[in-house]
Amino acid sequence: MHVEHLRWSVSGTLRILDQTRLPGEERWLEINRLDALVEAIRSLRVRGAPAIGIAAAMGLVAILRSRGAVGDTGEGPERAAGAGASARERFLSRVDETAAVLADARPTAVNLRWAMDRMRRRAHRAQGGPEAVLTSLRGEAQAIWDEDRATCNAIGEHGQALMRPGIRVLTHCNTGALATGGIGTALGIVHLAAERGLGPHVWVGETRPLWQGARLTAWELGRAGISHAVLPDSAAATLMAERKVDIVLVGADRIARNGDVANKVGTYALAVLARHHEVPFYSVAPTTSFDPACPTGAEIRIEYRDAAEVTAPFGVPVAPAGSPAFNPAFDVTPAALVTGYVTERGMVHPPFEE
Amino acid sequence: MHVEHLRWSVSGTLRILDQTRLPGEERWLEINRLDALVEAIRSLRVRGAPAIGIAAAMGLVAILRSRGAVGDTGEGPERAAGAGASARERFLSRVDETAAVLADARPTAVNLRWAMDRMRRRAHRAQGGPEAVLTSLRGEAQAIWDEDRATCNAIGEHGQALMRPGIRVLTHCNTGALATGGIGTALGIVHLAAERGLGPHVWVGETRPLWQGARLTAWELGRAGISHAVLPDSAAATLMAERKVDIVLVGADRIARNGDVANKVGTYALAVLARHHEVPFYSVAPTTSFDPACPTGAEIRIEYRDAAEVTAPFGVPVAPAGSPAFNPAFDVTPAALVTGYVTERGMVHPPFEE
Repeated sequence: MHVEHLRWSVSGTLRILDQTRLPGEERWLEINRLDALVEAIRSLRVRGAPAIGIAAAMGLVAILRSRGAVGDTGEGPERAAGAGASARERFLSRVDETAAVLADARPTAVNLRWAMDRMRRRAHRAQGGPEAVLTSLRGEAQAIWDEDRATCNAIGEHGQALMRPGIRVLTHCNTGALATGGIGTALGIVHLAAERGLGPHVWVGETRPLWQGARLTAWELGRAGISHAVLPDSAAATLMAERKVDIVLVGADRIARNGDVANKVGTYALAVLARHHEVPFYSVAPTTSFDPACPTGAEIRIEYRDAAEVTAPFGVPVAPAGSPAFNPAFDVTPAALVTGYVTERGMVHPPFEE
Repeated sequence: MHVEHLRWSVSGTLRILDQTRLPGEERWLEINRLDALVEAIRSLRVRGAPAIGIAAAMGLVAILRSRGAVGDTGEGPERAAGAGASARERFLSRVDETAAVLADARPTAVNLRWAMDRMRRRAHRAQGGPEAVLTSLRGEAQAIWDEDRATCNAIGEHGQALMRPGIRVLTHCNTGALATGGIGTALGIVHLAAERGLGPHVWVGETRPLWQGARLTAWELGRAGISHAVLPDSAAATLMAERKVDIVLVGADRIARNGDVANKVGTYALAVLARHHEVPFYSVAPTTSFDPACPTGAEIRIEYRDAAEVTAPFGVPVAPAGSPAFNPAFDVTPAALVTGYVTERGMVHPPFEE
C-alpha cells in the first residue's frame, strides 16, 4: 500500500500530511481557510504537481463550506426564486475568486491551474443553489483525486515496459505517493516494478535545497522496502560514469507543446549528464501536466524562492548571514534531451496538441 | 589581504582555524599531538589539497617537538658518538612513522603525501642530532608554506590571461586562502582580478554535502567585497543555459599523468555541463597536485565518507534514520573535458611527466 497524505475529515475540512515535517514527524493539518491553504501550498506542506491540484480542489470545497453554512448569505429562505438566483450568483463569485487565488499560489505547476479551471467550470454548470453547487464541487474534487489515482496506476503499467530485473533507477525530487493522489508518477513505475518482484534499486538525488528526495522519496522507499541510497545531487555524474545508472525517471511540473519539461531544479543537469553518458532519460507525468497552450519552455514562468532556503537550511546558517543566493525552484529541460514521455495513455511524443 | 588560517604558536604548536565552524565561529585549535592532527585533517578542520600538505608539515614539527624535549630519549649526553647516532636514528624513525600516519590521513589529495615525502627526505639529509634535524624540519615546513604562497601568486598572475572586466566565474568547493597557504588557486585568480578592478562576479556552488562553497568561499568573497551568489550545485546547469557563466574555475586534489583530475565531488558534473554549454572549464592547481606516477584517473583512490554527512547534515536528519547514502568525497573529470590547466608555471598540457 502506498502512503495516503490527503484526506477529507468527517466535518468536511481538508486534512494534509505536512510534508515539511517528514521524515521526522507525521503531523496532519486541518484546513478550511483560504489563507491556510495558500500557505500550505507555498510552504510545500503539500507539493508535487498532481497533489497540489487535488489538494486545491478538495481545499476549495472545504473553504467554501466553512464560510458559515453555505446558504447563510443573509438571504432568508422566504426570498424565493430571485433571491435564490442571487445567492447562487454570489456563491459562484466566491468559487471563482477563491479558485483564482489558489490557482496563483504556485506559478510553475500547470495541474493547479488545470484543477481550478475544472472546478470553476463544474460550479457554473451545476444546477441549483449554493448547497447543490457545493455538492457538485465535492464530487468533482473527489473525481479529480480518483482519476489521478487511476492515472498513476496507468502510468505505472505503461512504465513497466522500461523496467527489467535489478534495474537501477536514478530519480530526483519526489514523484511518489506523496506527490500525487495514488502510487506516484516516476516513482509509481518503480513501486509497481517492486511489487512484481523485479527488485529495482533507486538512486535518490537528495534534491537541494529542500531535500524532497532525501526526506520524502527515501521515506516512501524505506516504507515500501525498496532498495535505495540517497546522494548529493552532484554525485549523480559519478554514478553514471561508473555505469551504475540504467535509466533516469523524473516527473514534470509542466510540459510545453514542443516537449520542453519544467521540473524540480536539478532535472536539467541530470538530463545533460544522462545524454553525455548515454543513459535513457524519461519524463513521467499525467497528461494534466502537459500545457499545449505553452509553445516552448522559454514561456514557462519559473518560480524563484527565498535565498534562506539555500543559505540557512532548517534555520542552520551554512553561508554567511546575508549571502545572496540563486534559488530557482524549477528548471527547463529541452525536449531534445528527453528520451520519452510516459503518461497514462502510454508513451507520447511532441508536439503535444490538446 | 587574504585570510590566514594556519599559524605557528609562540610555544611551537600548530594553530589551525577550525574550518568546520565557519562561517559562524572563528575558533582556533592548538595542535601538538598526532591523533589530534589526524582528526583535524579527517574531519576537514583543515582542508584543501595545498593547505593539508602545509598543515601536515607544520604539524609534524609540532608533534616531534612536543613528545618531551627532543633530546629526551633516555640517552644522557655522556653517551657520546655511538649514543648520539642512536638518538638520531630513533628520532628519524619517529619522523618516518609520524609522517607515514599523516600521509595516510586522507587518501585522495596528493599534496599531503608529497609534503610528507619531502619532510622525510629533509630529515634524513639533515646533519646532527634530533635538535638539529628538528630545526631543519621546521625550516622545511616554513619553506613549503612560503613556496605555496608564492605559487598561489604565480597561479593568480598566469590566470589573469583568462579574466576580463565583469567576468562571471562559476566555482565549486573552496580554492581560496582557506585551501592554501596564500591567496588560493582557482579563487586566487578571482582575488587578483578583483584587486585589479575587473569586478568579477562569482557563482558559488554550495558544494554538498559539506558546503565548502557556501560556508567558506562565500565567507572569503564576502570579506573581500567580491560580488557573488551561492547556489544549489544542481542549479549550475540553469545558469549555463541562461548564458550567465563565462568560465568555470575549479581546483584539483590530484591530477593524473594523462590530465584526469580528481577534485571535490560535483566537479565532474560541472565539466560535463560546461562542455554541453560550450563554457571553458579550467583546472587550477600547483604542480604539487600533479601525480605523474598515476597514469589515469582510474588509478586515483577516491575517499568515501560517512553516510551521515548526506543524511543528517549538522546533525539535522534530512533522510529517515538509517537511510543508505552514496557519499564519495571526490570525483574524476576526464582530461578531455578540461579546457586547460593553470599552474604556477603557466598553462600546461598533458601528458604530465615529472
